[in-house]
Amino acid sequence: MKILLIGARGTVGRGVAAELGTRHEVIAAGRTGGEVTLDLADPAGLRRALAALGPLDAIVSAAGQVGWAPLLALTPDQWAFSVANKLMGQVNLALVGQEFLVDGGSITLTSGVLRDQPVPYGAAASLANGGIEAFVRAAAIELPRGIRINAVSPGVLLESMDALGPFFRGFEPVPSARVALGYSRSVEGADTGQVYAVH
Amino acid sequence: MKILLIGARGTVGRGVAAELGTRHEVIAAGRTGGEVTLDLADPAGLRRALAALGPLDAIVSAAGQVGWAPLLALTPDQWAFSVANKLMGQVNLALVGQEFLVDGGSITLTSGVLRDQPVPYGAAASLANGGIEAFVRAAAIELPRGIRINAVSPGVLLESMDALGPFFRGFEPVPSARVALGYSRSVEGADTGQVYAVH
Repeated sequence: MKILLIGARGTVGRGVAAELGTRHEVIAAGRTGGEVTLDLADPAGLRRALAALGPLDAIVSAAGQVGWAPLLALTPDQWAFSVANKLMGQVNLALVGQEFLVDGGSITLTSGVLRDQPVPYGAAASLANGGIEAFVRAAAIELPRGIRINAVSPGVLLESMDALGPFFRGFEPVPSARVALGYSRSVEGADTGQVYAVH
Repeated sequence: MKILLIGARGTVGRGVAAELGTRHEVIAAGRTGGEVTLDLADPAGLRRALAALGPLDAIVSAAGQVGWAPLLALTPDQWAFSVANKLMGQVNLALVGQEFLVDGGSITLTSGVLRDQPVPYGAAASLANGGIEAFVRAAAIELPRGIRINAVSPGVLLESMDALGPFFRGFEPVPSARVALGYSRSVEGADTGQVYAVH
């Protein structure tokens, strides 16, 4: 398969690249590096980048930034940034990206454990995750040409515990290699409208 | 209690007003009518309107519009409108509104059955509902002064079946009087971070 992986240089993305790269052609994309540079918050640029790649078998997003601050300290800009990136950025990716998928191709987005297990500072992340999971279920029943869409909900990554540990005390860290299995199920399985929780 | 009810003239809002109005002072608000005029997508106007009302015991949102179209026909404007109204409009209401609540006051937002039971045309509604429910759980653990926050997830309203029936075949319609009980539990109970599904 020819798979576009967005957020390829992030912690989740590296795990996904390692898992899928052994069996498939993985095209690494990101905001600032990789083989393809693209910004999920820029639909026109996204379309240009996808058109240049030609037909894809799968699009995987392991991307999506959010604001991180105490609930009442999150600024309007941080809320807007979170919505434009992790939430509507991934929605844009699905809506634009489906045009460039082969029949039966797949889209895999990323939500996260904060959807239903919140932590202080994480309200914008929770909101984005909740929106993504509901969108995936809704889009699954309307996408044309047998195109599938799922989400993976990672827990806190073992590899991120140095930075994120203080925010996630008591959460069981998950190795990125295990999170990558969720993306494998979505891309290499036959499901649609599913959320694979790896927490 | 002194309760601000936004969306008071909608189908859900009328049911909530009937239920809570028998025991409490309900101030009706909406975009175009009611005792107070306000627009959830306008945070500055929202703050002015709330400041003029003085301390409240509860804020209830039975509001929030979304775009409604086939997945691939939803325009960028319809997505932005849905996010600005039902999703971030209600989030703004909670974040601004908490300042004007008494200690231990409550906020009740509205999601909906489409979060996990999607229908064609409803992807923007599903996304908004998923975001609201995750936000409510996250906000509940950070709101100060014992302020509570919950959501009610109505099914398709019996009173809306003339207009919405064709989109919701097989869904069991729910009378607005029954949906109103969810708002009563949130306002008059002691829970926080809950979603009351009335489908």
